Order: sequence, then structure tokens, then C-alpha cells
Amino acid sequence: MARATAATSLVLIFFLSFMLFSSSFSSASSSWKSKKHHKPCKHLLLFFHDIIYNGRNAANATSAIVAAPQGANLTILADKFHFGNIAVFDDPITLDNNLHSPPVGRAQGMYIYDTKNTFSAWLGFTFVLKTKDYQGTINFNGADPLMNKTRDISIVGGTGDFFMHRGVATLMTDSFEGEVYFRLSVDIKFYECW
Amino acid sequence: MARATAATSLVLIFFLSFMLFSSSFSSASSSWKSKKHHKPCKHLLLFFHDIIYNGRNAANATSAIVAAPQGANLTILADKFHFGNIAVFDDPITLDNNLHSPPVGRAQGMYIYDTKNTFSAWLGFTFVLKTKDYQGTINFNGADPLMNKTRDISIVGGTGDFFMHRGVATLMTDSFEGEVYFRLSVDIKFYECW
Amino acid sequence: MARATAATSLVLIFFLSFMLFSSSFSSASSSWKSKKHHKPCKHLLLFFHDIIYNGRNAANATSAIVAAPQGANLTILADKFHFGNIAVFDDPITLDNNLHSPPVGRAQGMYIYDTKNTFSAWLGFTFVLKTKDYQGTINFNGADPLMNKTRDISIVGGTGDFFMHRGVATLMTDSFEGEVYFRLSVDIKFYECW
Repeated sequence: MARATAATSLVLIFFLSFMLFSSSFSSASSSWKSKKHHKPCKHLLLFFHDIIYNGRNAANATSAIVAAPQGANLTILADKFHFGNIAVFDDPITLDNNLHSPPVGRAQGMYIYDTKNTFSAWLGFTFVLKTKDYQGTINFNGADPLMNKTRDISIVGGTGDFFMHRGVATLMTDSFEGEVYFRLSVDIKFYECW
Repeated sequence: MARATAATSLVLIFFLSFMLFSSSFSSASSSWKSKKHHKPCKHLLLFFHDIIYNGRNAANATSAIVAAPQGANLTILADKFHFGNIAVFDDPITLDNNLHSPPVGRAQGMYIYDTKNTFSAWLGFTFVLKTKDYQGTINFNGADPLMNKTRDISIVGGTGDFFMHRGVATLMTDSFEGEVYFRLSVDIKFYECW
Repeated sequence: MARATAATSLVLIFFLSFMLFSSSFSSASSSWKSKKHHKPCKHLLLFFHDIIYNGRNAANATSAIVAAPQGANLTILADKFHFGNIAVFDDPITLDNNLHSPPVGRAQGMYIYDTKNTFSAWLGFTFVLKTKDYQGTINFNGADPLMNKTRDISIVGGTGDFFMHRGVATLMTDSFEGEVYFRLSVDIKFYECW
């Protein structure tokens, strides 16, 4: 009887050992999942449309040049790859690449042309979204070397349905017409979702 | 005696089991708390005060218009909801809503009026704090649709006592006098504290 | 025999107890490591060089004043500690403090002088890096009180080899010549590496 009880206790100990290890394993793997997996926990593809003010399109323009280097003006993007221009924008966001599709939000902020020997901009802006699925804001920061087919910028935070989210957004120039209209596709991949 | 010892070992095993489960539970819950719980790990309520330069208040002004759309100037906020104005600021931060309370830091950065059909701004700024409890900086990014009672922006990082912190700040317009003075309350909720 | 087995089971129980505690300790400490340890998971020391346009150095200038307060111009930094000046830059990054060393990337973005009673700037910029070891971008935000020996700003995100990274960068003014050239050392410490 005593031997049987002791044997039982040994079985229980091994069972307990197994649980201990599986518990510590699952704890490690869940930490891995929440912090390190390179698979988005949320994913959105959106488009936004920028019509820059050129002195004659006040009704349609969604952005305006508000700063320029010495000698330049505020209705024509500056020479030398627009180096030194800051544009402020409030651009419609759509689910497809049609400017006239019903907007699901606004892209608001600024772009700064910051290079003299190629087209490149620094972006600080926010997506204010009201889609069927999501209400909230997404905040972006990053460099946008326009001549590259794809450009990655950082998603530095979010609010509402994007509370505390972080991720990476891949920009592509989907259309570019003269120097008045451009359309970007924004492939939003959240890797930290809360 | 043997039975008693075996019984004791069983009791210990159950006690151990309990601890194992409570341990794995607490490990899960602490992971939950640090990454997913929507309860702040640190909380501050602060106010900041902005007096914009209008050409006649150089001594008191804490901010200045430094960029404007075509046709506007730098001492009067632009037409059309100030679309295109960039203001740079170094505003005192106080613990209550009194402009004359001893400042506990400075709010430094810029706001950009970026909408033509309502009052809305994009914010990029830093709180440089020296309170009794905290020394450090907090960095903010986000959209501020001024006509909403509350607006959430992202806390994208911090230094010093706010080392690596992230969170969300809720802005409220606490006072608004003409177009020269405004006061915001900033409800700072950190959800990632390190 | 029964007593011996029971004694063995007690030893196992204590062994198990020890493992349980060490497991929960290591789980806590691994969580500490991934989230709380103040030891960088990646570390870079870099320099960048800013030559501001003054009306006569177009060929060499890497930055330009693009916004200024009322009464100031775009070729001379404004009075009162340059309050209200925004400069856009595309500055070479080097591995040492020599302006003529082969650049390993570009620092692109803006600085905003935002204080009237001392030299201080708000920074929003990106390191676009192509070193031997790393390809990718690092995004920065923060206050830069220039008169302090060291200043900490936030690393709010990254892409490429810096995918989803966060951290803190310590800036030091490594050189300052008149108001045309300055060089900063940037001690980049990532605490969240993915």
C-alpha cells in the first residue's frame, strides 16, 4: 500500500513535470507570437489622392505648398527636385484606386521634399479612418524616396480601433499626373495589435 | 508511518500543483498586463498654454506662425480654417488650468492646420518635463480635430523617466480665447512602461 | 522501503519546487529581457553633417531654411535663438567624424527651432542607411536642447534591417562652426529589435 502510494506520487510528479515544461514552453511561444512574428496581425490596403494647389484649382485642391526655399513661390513646386518645399494636405482615402469612390477617411499631415538630386520626401501624417470595419487613427513617419517602386515607412501608433498598434506601411505611386495629382497605394501591415 | 509520509507527499504535490497553476496563470496575466491590458501603467494629467504671436504681443507670445499658404501672412491665421498654417511653439506646461501656475515643463514642436472645411491640425511635439516625480521627455504625433470634445493622439516614445514608453493622450480644449490664446488638457495614459 | 520511497518523492518534490521557482523566475527574467532590460539589442554610433544654405554655398549646402517668423528671411537664421525657423535637410551620414569619409547613408527630414530663450529644436527625420551590415531606415522624433551636452530622442520605428525596431538615440554636438556647419554624433541604442 505504502509502495503503491509512493508510486502514485511519482506518477503525479512526472505528470507535474510534464505540465511544468509544457507550461514554460507555451509561455515562451506566446511571447514569441506577440512580439516577433513577421506576419501581420491586421492588414489594410488603402489609396489616397493628392491634388496640389497651383493657383488655379482652389476648389479641387487637397494640398498646398506652405513653405519653400529662398527664391521659390507657393504655387509652383521648387526647382532641384522640389528641395525645401513643405506641403500640407487633407487627402481623401478610398478603398480602390478611383478618386471618385466614396472616401473612407482622410490622410492629414505634411510632406517635405528634402533632397536636391532625386525626388524624395519626409512624411508625417495621420489616417483618420471611418470604414465599415474600423474607426480610429493611424500615425505614420518616414522617408519616401519617390523613384523607388515600393517604400516602407513606420506606423508609430494608433488610436480607436488601432489603439497602440505599430507596423510598417508600404507605399507605391499608383498614379502621377504632371505635378498636380498623385495617388499612393498604402499597404498597411500591423505587427503589434493589442 | 509510510502511509502518513506518502499522504504528506500527496498534499505537497497538490500544493505544488496549485502553485504551478497559479504561477502559469500569473505569468499569463502579467504578460497580458504588460502588452494587452487597457489599463494605464502610468497616468498624468497636464495642461499647456499657447499664446500665438499676432504682431503686437512679442513679449507674451509662446508660438508663431512660420508658414502660410499663398496670399496669407504670418501674423493672422489664414482663411479657410487656417488651412496651410504651420505654428511653432514653446508652451508652458502646468499641473492645473491656470496659465500663471508654476510651469513643470515645456511643450515644444509644431501644429499644422491641415483642413479646409473644419478646424483640424496635425501635431508633432514633445513634452520636456521636470516635475517633482518625473524628469524626461514624451513624444507625441497625431491628428487633432479641434471641434471634437476629445481627441486621441499617439505617444510614440519617451526618454528619461519615460524611457521607451508608449501610450495614448486624450486632448481637450480647456479654453479658447479669440484666436490668440488656447489651453489644452492632456490626459496622458501610458500602456507600455518598461 | 516505503519510507525510502516517500523520502525520494520528497526530494523530487523539492527538486520540482526548485524548478518551478526557477522556471517562473526565468519566465519573468525572459520577459524582463525582451521588454524591460536596459541593455541595447542593437547598437550603432554614427555621425551626420549639416551645411545650411546661406545664399552663397548652394553647391555644398545640405540643408535650407524654408520657414521663418515674420520679418526674418531664408538665408540667415532668425534672431531670438532662431525661434520659428524650419530647416529641411538631406545630410550625409558617416561612420566617423570626418565630413569627407564615404557616406553610409543620408539623414533626411527637418529641424524646427522652437525656443526664444535658448537654442532648442524639434526633430523629425529618418536615417536611410546602406552600411556593410545594415540596409534600412530608422525614424526619429524628439526635442533637441542644443546647449545640453547630451540629448535623448526617441526612435519611433524602423524598416528593412531595422524592421519594427524602437529605441533611444543620444545626440551630441561634435562640431559647430559659425552658423553654417554642425556635426552631430548619434548614439543609436535599440531596445526592441524583433
